Amino acid sequence: MDIKAYTIEELNSLAEDIREKILHTVSKNGGHLSSTMGATDLIIAMHKVFDAKKDPFIFDVSHQAYAHKLLTDRWESFETLRQFGGISGYTKPSESAYDYYVAGHSSTSISLAVGAAKAIALKGEERVPVAFIGDGSMSAGMVYEALNELGDRKYPVVIILNDNEMSIAKPIGAISKLLSQTMAGSFYQKFKGKVEKALEHLPEGATYMAKRFEESFKLITPGILFEEMGIEYIGPVDGHDIERLIETMEIAKELKKPVIIHAQTTKGKGYEIAEGTKEHWHGVSAFDLKTGKAPKKSGAKAATAIFSEALVALADEDEKVVGVTAAMPSGTGMSAVIEKYPERFWDVAIAEQHAVTSMGPLAKEGFKPFCTIYSTFLQRGYDQVIHDICLMDLGVVFAMDRAGIVGEDGETHQGVFDISYLRAIPNMTLLAPYNETTMKQCMRFAKEYAHPCAFRYPRGAFMAEDCDAPEYELGKSHLLQEGEEILFIGYGNGVGRAQKVAEIMDVNVAILDLRFVKPLDREMLIELSKKYHKWFVFSDSVKEGGVGSAILELLSEEKIDNVLLTSFEYDDAFITHGNTKLVEESLGLLPEQLAKKIV
Amino acid sequence: MDIKAYTIEELNSLAEDIREKILHTVSKNGGHLSSTMGATDLIIAMHKVFDAKKDPFIFDVSHQAYAHKLLTDRWESFETLRQFGGISGYTKPSESAYDYYVAGHSSTSISLAVGAAKAIALKGEERVPVAFIGDGSMSAGMVYEALNELGDRKYPVVIILNDNEMSIAKPIGAISKLLSQTMAGSFYQKFKGKVEKALEHLPEGATYMAKRFEESFKLITPGILFEEMGIEYIGPVDGHDIERLIETMEIAKELKKPVIIHAQTTKGKGYEIAEGTKEHWHGVSAFDLKTGKAPKKSGAKAATAIFSEALVALADEDEKVVGVTAAMPSGTGMSAVIEKYPERFWDVAIAEQHAVTSMGPLAKEGFKPFCTIYSTFLQRGYDQVIHDICLMDLGVVFAMDRAGIVGEDGETHQGVFDISYLRAIPNMTLLAPYNETTMKQCMRFAKEYAHPCAFRYPRGAFMAEDCDAPEYELGKSHLLQEGEEILFIGYGNGVGRAQKVAEIMDVNVAILDLRFVKPLDREMLIELSKKYHKWFVFSDSVKEGGVGSAILELLSEEKIDNVLLTSFEYDDAFITHGNTKLVEESLGLLPEQLAKKIV
Repeated sequence: MDIKAYTIEELNSLAEDIREKILHTVSKNGGHLSSTMGATDLIIAMHKVFDAKKDPFIFDVSHQAYAHKLLTDRWESFETLRQFGGISGYTKPSESAYDYYVAGHSSTSISLAVGAAKAIALKGEERVPVAFIGDGSMSAGMVYEALNELGDRKYPVVIILNDNEMSIAKPIGAISKLLSQTMAGSFYQKFKGKVEKALEHLPEGATYMAKRFEESFKLITPGILFEEMGIEYIGPVDGHDIERLIETMEIAKELKKPVIIHAQTTKGKGYEIAEGTKEHWHGVSAFDLKTGKAPKKSGAKAATAIFSEALVALADEDEKVVGVTAAMPSGTGMSAVIEKYPERFWDVAIAEQHAVTSMGPLAKEGFKPFCTIYSTFLQRGYDQVIHDICLMDLGVVFAMDRAGIVGEDGETHQGVFDISYLRAIPNMTLLAPYNETTMKQCMRFAKEYAHPCAFRYPRGAFMAEDCDAPEYELGKSHLLQEGEEILFIGYGNGVGRAQKVAEIMDVNVAILDLRFVKPLDREMLIELSKKYHKWFVFSDSVKEGGVGSAILELLSEEKIDNVLLTSFEYDDAFITHGNTKLVEESLGLLPEQLAKKIV
Repeated sequence: MDIKAYTIEELNSLAEDIREKILHTVSKNGGHLSSTMGATDLIIAMHKVFDAKKDPFIFDVSHQAYAHKLLTDRWESFETLRQFGGISGYTKPSESAYDYYVAGHSSTSISLAVGAAKAIALKGEERVPVAFIGDGSMSAGMVYEALNELGDRKYPVVIILNDNEMSIAKPIGAISKLLSQTMAGSFYQKFKGKVEKALEHLPEGATYMAKRFEESFKLITPGILFEEMGIEYIGPVDGHDIERLIETMEIAKELKKPVIIHAQTTKGKGYEIAEGTKEHWHGVSAFDLKTGKAPKKSGAKAATAIFSEALVALADEDEKVVGVTAAMPSGTGMSAVIEKYPERFWDVAIAEQHAVTSMGPLAKEGFKPFCTIYSTFLQRGYDQVIHDICLMDLGVVFAMDRAGIVGEDGETHQGVFDISYLRAIPNMTLLAPYNETTMKQCMRFAKEYAHPCAFRYPRGAFMAEDCDAPEYELGKSHLLQEGEEILFIGYGNGVGRAQKVAEIMDVNVAILDLRFVKPLDREMLIELSKKYHKWFVFSDSVKEGGVGSAILELLSEEKIDNVLLTSFEYDDAFITHGNTKLVEESLGLLPEQLAKKIV
């Protein structure tokens, strides 16, 4: 859509249409809502001032970029948002040439803009990278690393800071407080211009004092932090005043140096029910537009809910239980325990590295930290798990939510690598539950265990029904049923999948709940190799270095050569977004499909 | 050593003794020199004011903590510094109860201090965590994540910023520039006290204006950045004036809130030859005290030197070749190319996340980035490799120096996990050279390859002699020699080890230079399985998910059951420090030892 010739009125009307479109689509498909509604005016101004065909538009996390999608040839297809085979909920270059980069994890945009600026400088081109970043993304260390280089090298990069005074939950951290210090903001803006004019006519010495005086006013705006780092600061500006935004961006574009535009927006702008800082409206399922209510979900309890309740119970019975989340209190189910025990459970904002490392000393001092981070986001704290927890051999528990296929979020969020990257670390123990009872058992085991351990569980409900089970013992698996010839080995949610496949099959198969992929139950596996020679591995994780691989290593060490192992873990490719069942079907992982493969 | 009762004179004299001891030991054993010499007075003041028995002393990176070791019962054993079985070059709780935490990677100290402060608060104790951090560590994002929480929650933590105006190489980044803005520093310190006194007696309105005026002066000190984040700032102070340091630390200790003491020190203080900001003296081999010269090294060319020369050659022939290092220009051999092409090669300071991500857009824009990071430090950029490079399927090359056992640096620095953590990532290609010729071939392959790839090479020289070799082809291995029954499979430096073992053996063994562990040479391996049934894998990496594991996965997929595979990769334990040969001997990895095992 070419909006270069649009009047302000037309742009405002377009903003209405876009919000309407987003609202209707998300109310049907689910998706991110409040941030993307709030960002609409900013994105329209961006498209008016910059050229999406040549200037790299880099959206941080990019769940707020729906308006950008609608402005760039995806008005019709937008109705397929987040559906299997449809439009992604994030920017995606393979979907549109207007999407410069992929982003689902937070705080990468300024690094990307610096990289783009370097390329542009080397090519001698005039393009300007525009990074669009929410205030919630400002807490992660990557942002600071990138600003540090940007402020030093002074590449022309425009950063649009979309400040809705809320990351995903409530504002956290010193930076967040700083951003809200807007008291004298607009006064300063006017004053600054006057001082600068005056300075031109003053003698040398006076300039110095006047500059100082000016700076004393600058202090009370949030800009100081950025200016100290060598980035020009403009703001705060009203992020819904398209006319003003266009003027501001024009100025920023002409500066030819790094500049940050601090725009204040209202989350959920245009949909009254969702307006304001309500975490609930960040990402939603389908809902009724009139009431804002989602249809009541039926079905089994989500693994996250089980975790949440069980953690409160553990915290009730033992005051040594503490924990951390990195800006995902609802997503991880940590809200309940943070609310009940605010002194012992912390939300440290989007800061996985700090979240992991800061739990080390708590374990050293005798506490039992539950470090609750999605599988995909724990990748951000990988070195910290190795260097600050496992090398110290401390009893930190990693509770990895969203392990396996995550559905509509797709590629950037799949929790499929954790087994491979954690299994390589000495002193680490890896375990997994497959239903409500075993989840609680896992957590009790973890709470008592004096070394690092990590357990994983899926988004949504476990595949398996609940049932009785023996307590977890280090490195001990549980044989759920004996069979003939064929052995199914399930890990975590894979146990439920194995059971469902077994139900379909004509032959009786043995099913092993592996429980620990590190250390493996050596004794049991050796024993089983005597009776069963066809093994099938079920786990929601990649094959390379995964559960099957671990078992092959053991078989090789034990020189067992009469076992034929087939792994039904994920093949070596990034997994797309969409309804989990449809995605699994496309990978041939539905129980019916697997049963056929085995026969 | 209890120095609580020492006079200033005695402390100064102690500082001399400590420097003397460090200098003599490092001149014999090698080790870190200039930072630890510069930090001596600060550490003495720390021990005078705080109590190492109860207050957590947290040294960032901890290579500057030698004085701390000498002050805490390791005066005699210090002579074994960095030797196998001797004192570690880093803090290590298993070595001394005075060492609160392990640290060899940078920028963890403030997160650790925050964690310790939380534990102390929950226990209701009076202890104060003291984080000791160099200016070079301030560029990494972790520091900022931790400051963000610290400034918000206001735990009593004392941060000692040891500013020697140099990280490992020259100062880089906006933060570094900010720290050196000391112009009006001491004036401000005096002025601040006076203003604060005056403020007490002024009416409300006047306070506001006076506060403003005060703040206008604060601006020109480096403190503003920290104060804006909610951390009290004191400084800059002379880091060699023990009396002043003690006074300052006493004040900081009593504040009961987060405070940063900015101390300026001279690197190499006390050893004239090394004084000042000379990168050479950061970490050294044994040297002659009088001349400062190290004995000329004989023997084969280091892999890093080969890389360095080859990269210059590639950059000469193709202006699209660009690259990045994260504060390790000498260590990675990037200095030469940065010096020759400063517009195309960047040192981004200690900031691995930003280093990785910022190379993505350069690849997208048609450049060929070489992202040169030690194997152990790439762990810091793991999520970025997945999310910002591989998901985009961009042709970024990861050159991983220090792969395998690194010798005297030990546990924190071993480059042993990279194969396991990278092999799980879709779109990633993994290859390795084993001598000078294959190193150059690897690099040429990487330069032409349009997808992400990573190659690894050891610290020091390759084990193998140089020789002719065919060019690298994607997924193609190279059979170096045929043999009887036994097949040796070498990856990277493992090829040299395999050759050395083969030389000792009585039987003729076949040797395969695997070249690619991802993708594997399926055809060749299937072919070899027909002739050879005993396979031995040689690679300087952990077993879990490593090279042997990859081959087992392939054998399993191909249903090949007549191969008995033994992996000589590393067992599942952190590997200690010391001379590489002694460390390898302790692991049973010397060629003689391996030959015996095979027989």
